[in-house]
Amino acid sequence: MTTTPKPSATTPDTKIYERRESTVRSYSRSMPRQFNRAQGVWMHDSEGGRYLDFLSGCSSLNYGHNHPVLKQALVDYIASDGVTHALDLHTDAKARFLSTLEDVILKPRSLNYRAMFTGPTGTNAVEAAIKLARKVTGREMVVAFTNGFHGMTLGALACTGNAGKRGGAGVPLGHVSHEPYDGYYGDEVDTADLLEQRLEDPSSGLDAPAAFLVETVQGEGGLNAASPEWLRKIAALAKKHGALMIVDDIQAGCGRTGGFFSFEDMGFTPDIVTLAKSLSGMGLPFALTLLRPELDVWKPGEHNGTFRGNNHAFVTATAAMREFWADPKFAGDIARRGRILEQRLERMAKRHGLSTRGRGMMRGINVGSGDVAEKITGTCFAEGLIIETSGAHDEIVKVLAPLVIDDDTFQAGLDILEEAIAETIAPVDASGTTSGKSDRKLGLAA
Amino acid sequence: MTTTPKPSATTPDTKIYERRESTVRSYSRSMPRQFNRAQGVWMHDSEGGRYLDFLSGCSSLNYGHNHPVLKQALVDYIASDGVTHALDLHTDAKARFLSTLEDVILKPRSLNYRAMFTGPTGTNAVEAAIKLARKVTGREMVVAFTNGFHGMTLGALACTGNAGKRGGAGVPLGHVSHEPYDGYYGDEVDTADLLEQRLEDPSSGLDAPAAFLVETVQGEGGLNAASPEWLRKIAALAKKHGALMIVDDIQAGCGRTGGFFSFEDMGFTPDIVTLAKSLSGMGLPFALTLLRPELDVWKPGEHNGTFRGNNHAFVTATAAMREFWADPKFAGDIARRGRILEQRLERMAKRHGLSTRGRGMMRGINVGSGDVAEKITGTCFAEGLIIETSGAHDEIVKVLAPLVIDDDTFQAGLDILEEAIAETIAPVDASGTTSGKSDRKLGLAA
Amino acid sequence: MTTTPKPSATTPDTKIYERRESTVRSYSRSMPRQFNRAQGVWMHDSEGGRYLDFLSGCSSLNYGHNHPVLKQALVDYIASDGVTHALDLHTDAKARFLSTLEDVILKPRSLNYRAMFTGPTGTNAVEAAIKLARKVTGREMVVAFTNGFHGMTLGALACTGNAGKRGGAGVPLGHVSHEPYDGYYGDEVDTADLLEQRLEDPSSGLDAPAAFLVETVQGEGGLNAASPEWLRKIAALAKKHGALMIVDDIQAGCGRTGGFFSFEDMGFTPDIVTLAKSLSGMGLPFALTLLRPELDVWKPGEHNGTFRGNNHAFVTATAAMREFWADPKFAGDIARRGRILEQRLERMAKRHGLSTRGRGMMRGINVGSGDVAEKITGTCFAEGLIIETSGAHDEIVKVLAPLVIDDDTFQAGLDILEEAIAETIAPVDASGTTSGKSDRKLGLAA
Amino acid sequence: MTTTPKPSATTPDTKIYERRESTVRSYSRSMPRQFNRAQGVWMHDSEGGRYLDFLSGCSSLNYGHNHPVLKQALVDYIASDGVTHALDLHTDAKARFLSTLEDVILKPRSLNYRAMFTGPTGTNAVEAAIKLARKVTGREMVVAFTNGFHGMTLGALACTGNAGKRGGAGVPLGHVSHEPYDGYYGDEVDTADLLEQRLEDPSSGLDAPAAFLVETVQGEGGLNAASPEWLRKIAALAKKHGALMIVDDIQAGCGRTGGFFSFEDMGFTPDIVTLAKSLSGMGLPFALTLLRPELDVWKPGEHNGTFRGNNHAFVTATAAMREFWADPKFAGDIARRGRILEQRLERMAKRHGLSTRGRGMMRGINVGSGDVAEKITGTCFAEGLIIETSGAHDEIVKVLAPLVIDDDTFQAGLDILEEAIAETIAPVDASGTTSGKSDRKLGLAA
Repeated sequence: MTTTPKPSATTPDTKIYERRESTVRSYSRSMPRQFNRAQGVWMHDSEGGRYLDFLSGCSSLNYGHNHPVLKQALVDYIASDGVTHALDLHTDAKARFLSTLEDVILKPRSLNYRAMFTGPTGTNAVEAAIKLARKVTGREMVVAFTNGFHGMTLGALACTGNAGKRGGAGVPLGHVSHEPYDGYYGDEVDTADLLEQRLEDPSSGLDAPAAFLVETVQGEGGLNAASPEWLRKIAALAKKHGALMIVDDIQAGCGRTGGFFSFEDMGFTPDIVTLAKSLSGMGLPFALTLLRPELDVWKPGEHNGTFRGNNHAFVTATAAMREFWADPKFAGDIARRGRILEQRLERMAKRHGLSTRGRGMMRGINVGSGDVAEKITGTCFAEGLIIETSGAHDEIVKVLAPLVIDDDTFQAGLDILEEAIAETIAPVDASGTTSGKSDRKLGLAA
Repeated sequence: MTTTPKPSATTPDTKIYERRESTVRSYSRSMPRQFNRAQGVWMHDSEGGRYLDFLSGCSSLNYGHNHPVLKQALVDYIASDGVTHALDLHTDAKARFLSTLEDVILKPRSLNYRAMFTGPTGTNAVEAAIKLARKVTGREMVVAFTNGFHGMTLGALACTGNAGKRGGAGVPLGHVSHEPYDGYYGDEVDTADLLEQRLEDPSSGLDAPAAFLVETVQGEGGLNAASPEWLRKIAALAKKHGALMIVDDIQAGCGRTGGFFSFEDMGFTPDIVTLAKSLSGMGLPFALTLLRPELDVWKPGEHNGTFRGNNHAFVTATAAMREFWADPKFAGDIARRGRILEQRLERMAKRHGLSTRGRGMMRGINVGSGDVAEKITGTCFAEGLIIETSGAHDEIVKVLAPLVIDDDTFQAGLDILEEAIAETIAPVDASGTTSGKSDRKLGLAA
Repeated sequence: MTTTPKPSATTPDTKIYERRESTVRSYSRSMPRQFNRAQGVWMHDSEGGRYLDFLSGCSSLNYGHNHPVLKQALVDYIASDGVTHALDLHTDAKARFLSTLEDVILKPRSLNYRAMFTGPTGTNAVEAAIKLARKVTGREMVVAFTNGFHGMTLGALACTGNAGKRGGAGVPLGHVSHEPYDGYYGDEVDTADLLEQRLEDPSSGLDAPAAFLVETVQGEGGLNAASPEWLRKIAALAKKHGALMIVDDIQAGCGRTGGFFSFEDMGFTPDIVTLAKSLSGMGLPFALTLLRPELDVWKPGEHNGTFRGNNHAFVTATAAMREFWADPKFAGDIARRGRILEQRLERMAKRHGLSTRGRGMMRGINVGSGDVAEKITGTCFAEGLIIETSGAHDEIVKVLAPLVIDDDTFQAGLDILEEAIAETIAPVDASGTTSGKSDRKLGLAA
Repeated sequence: MTTTPKPSATTPDTKIYERRESTVRSYSRSMPRQFNRAQGVWMHDSEGGRYLDFLSGCSSLNYGHNHPVLKQALVDYIASDGVTHALDLHTDAKARFLSTLEDVILKPRSLNYRAMFTGPTGTNAVEAAIKLARKVTGREMVVAFTNGFHGMTLGALACTGNAGKRGGAGVPLGHVSHEPYDGYYGDEVDTADLLEQRLEDPSSGLDAPAAFLVETVQGEGGLNAASPEWLRKIAALAKKHGALMIVDDIQAGCGRTGGFFSFEDMGFTPDIVTLAKSLSGMGLPFALTLLRPELDVWKPGEHNGTFRGNNHAFVTATAAMREFWADPKFAGDIARRGRILEQRLERMAKRHGLSTRGRGMMRGINVGSGDVAEKITGTCFAEGLIIETSGAHDEIVKVLAPLVIDDDTFQAGLDILEEAIAETIAPVDASGTTSGKSDRKLGLAA
């Protein structure tokens, strides 16, 4: 990493943003550079600085920026006047995508899903999923979970836990019950049992649910990873109570936790799965709702969207499936890098009396408060590492490195993180306590 | 048109769609071909047929398919490893887009808006717009209009009139009052006056609105075009009652009705404008909510979305603004083609005792029922013309030709339409009545 | 009336009210006396004043205060330890009430209803009615009307038009569409036709209704009386669209408009009728939802209420039905008094260029504004006449005299009103215009 | 008890009920007699049978039927033409009620509340309470508790846990979160702590509450009694989070648990208290919302109701406060009888391996299932004892004897219950297990 050009010291002319972009912009505030090029694990700013990307578009760039194979496939497609936009008409690109999805992803996993092309971003896939669950069951209430994040349109937002996001709605968000996620009340309380008691009690006030909507790892909510046992219990509860099990795999899927789906080998099969983010492989807008064929009760056009067939994304997604998922080697690489990440984060945590979170290549470290985390990520950015936070209080420093990162670069990036933490938080002393301020009890606000 | 290869007679192998694509697919049912190439006003199927496109991705392809200037700009960008996905980080592509929007679109029209990049499809832009209106006003109820179409996620869907789409929600859709659009009760009733009376009556049951959400021409709802007078009245009512005026220009904007915005020269300025569809110029997923700077009360990240900065779309949208909107010639071309369209449709209407709808290059002919319209569009497709329907009963045959179509090709396409109508509907006889069945009163179901 | 003792000039000690009664109290503010006795058409205050009651508990005292026959029946019942409270157990008093309802009210009118005893006030009867309509139809949306008033609990309040009352909810009021009542847009617009157009248009945004909830005369909303034609149209629309027709007869029923039910002889039969107010005959809390037997799909206890069987009210209601409704004479008396009222109000209206409203013994005069109306009712009270206002702006002076009032006393009371109006509003001059300020267009706020 | 006439063997003519009363009737199904007289603790049927009343109108008859002092006060009032109905006008009866409330109830307990007269049944008082909480806080969400019961109108029903009751709504019930009551997850889980964690977590999905609505003993929900510690925690949580603490004392108040209010001497003061049921003392419809004066932000008439001033109830309520609550002796009697009840129920429970519930004179025994409970109450009724069930599965036999019952009669009634249980459930054998079927785990449905 010694050869890494330092990021530029001057900031770009941001007046155009101040003048013409809404104040709703966020990441650009803590990373005040203008980026003009990106390749692999690196982003380059307009003044020659380069940055190692441990944010990866919030897991939208699992294969890195502009992967050459995907890029070539897209350029070829455009050059040959491949169909760009066609609503939901059949195109060669769509047929290839569906066939590849079937051959490379579904069949090897013995999964039988149909694909529904929703609007091209995650929240549209979630809206379609909960619409379908309500339609199939004739029920209205969806069980979502504490710290869950599912999107910003009203239906998905109602399933999202974050108070700041919810407050933006301007109307009450209904038809959803937010139940405690795995581990929410500590290790000794099995929240699936709590939920079961309420579901089976006709006087609990919890209406019969249309669906359980769950992330196996909560990407925005603090990298909480549910155990397979808990997820199986939830799946069994869903079945018992006539509800559908929806896994929102938008952030945790596409390899982030190891397999193509985050729930592989866990002993249950979701009724519905939502995918987006890294699905196109190159960061193009694309989302998908997978559903068991028996649930496919949609009438033609009952849910639609102008950009529901993003053919550019079909092309890159097809290329990505073939490049990365046709061979088990990639999953092995992720597993190895996930272990590196785990070990490094555990070491940092131990040194400072902190704790880690997550699974696979989707992990973080709880540094105790959003202020501390912000200092750490700020230090990282100054050192050329793009990294962000997660959690109810933004107290988790979150590592979402590209899955394709080579081990040396990965270690170098983690070195920057380790140093930034060390600069910010005092180490635990001999007696095992830290002199820093990171001991704030998780989940309790000031 | 004589050289046009006829569309292929055989249908493609659609088993992959039946097996793996949800039954929710719709357009591909009435146009059972597989398309593999598209250029300008033409789409080509996998068996050598070509089709003149009068659907234009429901107005997402106003500049035709794969316009060479836009295409080149995009290929160059990709080839140079331009940033593809960057959440809402600053990029060169975004800066250029914002500057061009300012210079080419806003300033010449004396408009002062800020741009909010929402999720990359229209419904996300609408959700952001109504969230903001509710946040700014502290009110919950939005006035939408009969036959309005605004999207499929729960917030936008609540503003949509169509019962079939609404029924997909599975939950009641609230916080919206659907009021009669201009002309809904016939020419003699001014529905703005009806609305005013209810707004000013504290006992009408109509709660104080956060916003009026209106299309100037209702693209999905039957190509009803509101008069400038009515729109000014609505804008004045909004102002008087402390509500925001939101123009949903997703389908009618980007030149479809003549100007870049559909409300230009009408004597009012919306508080918020939503754009999508043809905004990227090439059919890439992209949506935008424009808002008056005084309304920009968003907190950072209060509304967001993974694909809120589609840099490919920034590139093509910038190219499109420069190519088409820097010079008044394009608007003049649209106006001329709009007059051609008007005259041709009027002639067809007169011949069969029908009526026309719409404005600019966004017009249709009411053929009396969805069945009749389906026959007509089916005949057109067999003759190589892609054309679709609109309206509460799908009874409007809708012409959404590319704005860049040359006049001869345009006339040739309209010839196909005229012939298809003539084959389907008997002409009006000497006594002025038609022997066909297209006299069904609009707006009344069986 | 010359012998009427003037009301006392001093006000009672109201400190106990200021100290211990919520500021929500209202009528006691404009009538600051303490009443200690009431008989027939008179109320007596604690200082010897007496007042002719043209308010009648908002039509809860149609037979006057403490009618001797009802009073005797009640005292006898209490003295004999008749059951006072028994939830919904069978009691002699309930059996007699049901038999009398059947014999005296239902059979002579060829009506076949079952009685559901809801909580003992009108809003509870309305809540039960709309619950049942939703249960029977499986639909959620109820059509209510502008200026309708149906109660203050959340379900009934959602059906109420008044913004002030609605604002008290503190949550959005949903699942109801407020449509224009008969005459809302003036005589030339048939609002039933407007409603029909929207119901039959699948793209109007008006969801399929569970019920139409309508008052035949809007007691709180300004004494607007619907025409039989309009009501028949609404009933026919309900039938055609699978909705139930609910007549809220809480204020207009029990003789107020002439017959026991306000819809008698109008050519339609409601599916559900709500009654309360004068049902007990003596002002005791009592409410009833009548329903066609085919609609009686309630499970035992699915709707209930602690005081659903007010046995004291059973006793007085039974006595009232026997005393007043077993013989057609009473209806004839109401009709005669209704004509007196109509003529007197018309005379006042003509003199001052005003208009009248209402039907039977439920009439009022529109004096143009709430301020003017308040002056008039204040003057009346000072002269010993209790009278109140109605309407969106409280601009209607409302006469709800006891139905049993003798003609001379009635005329004397109307003299007071006429004089009060004359004192407040200038007469129309020779040219036919008034010099007063009462010409404000109804239904339009400042 | 040997002299007690057995209840009559024949059933009354119930055809009038079948013909004219809705199937929603419930208690009359399991107690198919017609009652014509009631005095003290006894109800008499039309065929000479008499029944000891351990139901007491679900705690509406705490002072027994037709208590002679109350009855005399009411007859005197009626005989003197006291005002029966006067909306919310001042009356002597109301002034006396307010003064007595102040002197006898509030001052001795150092409580400072204002009285709001709502519609005359509990659900109206609850609707007023939650409206006020929402108005004061500007928030919409109310926290209610599992197994809570608060009424049947939409606002109160949304706060009620029972699925059967909720299902009657026909619309989704929103703006309420149902949280686990004290002991819901067993003794080892403090549900107030669970609630606290979620309230303090900005990502839990639990919106900021307007109020906590809680019963100190859940009358309908199974006689679960919250501990003072838990209630104090809830009160503290409310204060900390800017929510109001509403105690619904409709069933547990008026002496049922010992004091006039159920929360006396618990170390916290509710912001709002709802009362109804036994408030009138004689079973007349009457309800009251008490509120801290600082919260009295109501505008005149913002919440109202035709029967909000039931003057007959003012008279009997005043007499009841004076008769029973002016002297501490009554509370002592309740305490003694409560201990008798506790000891007897504990003995029955021990004998059969069952458990007891409740507090004061509001106790029950969990017999394991609704079927068993129904057999027991049926046997009791055949022996002349009116007694009912409670709980999510109707599995609790509930003793709500009149508070004024003499000890011998009380013991005799409990003898009937004990025998009925013994007939139905086998005793626990030597090994400590029961051979009966009452061991079903509470709170878990089949």
